[in-house]
Amino acid sequence: MEFSEVVRRRRMVRDYDPDRPVPGEVRDRLLEHAIRAPSAGFSQGWAFLVLESPEERERFWTATTDESDAADRWLTRMRRAPLLIVPLSHKAAYLERYAESDKGWTDRDEARWPVPYWDIDTGMASLLMLLTAVDEGLAACFFGVPPEHLAGFRTVFGVPEDYTPIGCVSVGYVGAEDRRSPSLRRGRRGLEEVVHRGRW
Amino acid sequence: MEFSEVVRRRRMVRDYDPDRPVPGEVRDRLLEHAIRAPSAGFSQGWAFLVLESPEERERFWTATTDESDAADRWLTRMRRAPLLIVPLSHKAAYLERYAESDKGWTDRDEARWPVPYWDIDTGMASLLMLLTAVDEGLAACFFGVPPEHLAGFRTVFGVPEDYTPIGCVSVGYVGAEDRRSPSLRRGRRGLEEVVHRGRW
Repeated sequence: MEFSEVVRRRRMVRDYDPDRPVPGEVRDRLLEHAIRAPSAGFSQGWAFLVLESPEERERFWTATTDESDAADRWLTRMRRAPLLIVPLSHKAAYLERYAESDKGWTDRDEARWPVPYWDIDTGMASLLMLLTAVDEGLAACFFGVPPEHLAGFRTVFGVPEDYTPIGCVSVGYVGAEDRRSPSLRRGRRGLEEVVHRGRW
Repeated sequence: MEFSEVVRRRRMVRDYDPDRPVPGEVRDRLLEHAIRAPSAGFSQGWAFLVLESPEERERFWTATTDESDAADRWLTRMRRAPLLIVPLSHKAAYLERYAESDKGWTDRDEARWPVPYWDIDTGMASLLMLLTAVDEGLAACFFGVPPEHLAGFRTVFGVPEDYTPIGCVSVGYVGAEDRRSPSLRRGRRGLEEVVHRGRW
């Protein structure tokens, strides 16, 4: 698909057809594109946890949602997604990369970093997966993993302490009950509102 | 251009043809695509500072680099970029958005956020600009603004304290002296290294 068409069509989809799994070659392309994201110092401080079987996905939802969520229609629909990919950022890889001789930082002081590029770069990798899903005729959603479930998530999947899930990407074919987010009623902020030319 | 071709071709370019400005319609498309990035709760807590005239760009380089950098060949080449777009994240917009009634958070406690989506979403907007430059036959680079120059940058351009530049996107036609980053010698980390299936 044309790039601009992919950008125009991309949106968060929150219901999936439970009878149509994600083809293996599409899953592979999502990941191949993800690792083409840019990263500061080519640190590539990221990892991707791929959950496909019903058991693997069930473990994810159980570990990251509350009992009270069970009645939530959001969760009912999201659980139908046949593929979950959890992108994780690895801050230590960045601190180590910039302590190497060509970068010239002689310590691993986090204060040298204006913003957390480990999270930003892993976010860029996530966006490439969202866009690739659209390019392949599928749909996807990016959503957060609540901090109170972080420890449980790490335990269930054996994730090391120094890797942090920046969210989760659900992927599948769009479901019949997909609803647009009520947040969209807020409207898109136009260029005249967010662009500053020459100075603020 | 086909989406997958754009993803494959995208790379950081660090020298630009000083005689070829960025066409106005390309600049506009970069920004139109940037604001199509996803954002948590559709918060859209971002802004874009567009610097085009030689004076505007000179002010940016003077504010964000050291005297000692003057001899730096990186800077000599990067200064040739005819267009700079500084993406800024606005954390306060996210904290306020999630204090609204439909989100149900009754405070603005930053601890509710597992990762800084204000920076991640603004990073996604930046990646859309990098990709759009490739789609339009131009080149771009995303680079950081050092924390020690943050206050100076804000003063020079009148940027409010609660907006943080997550970096800068330089855009132009690729220059004759573009060199690949030495960081690329590190090699791309393959899928077998970064992908975990079912569990870690």
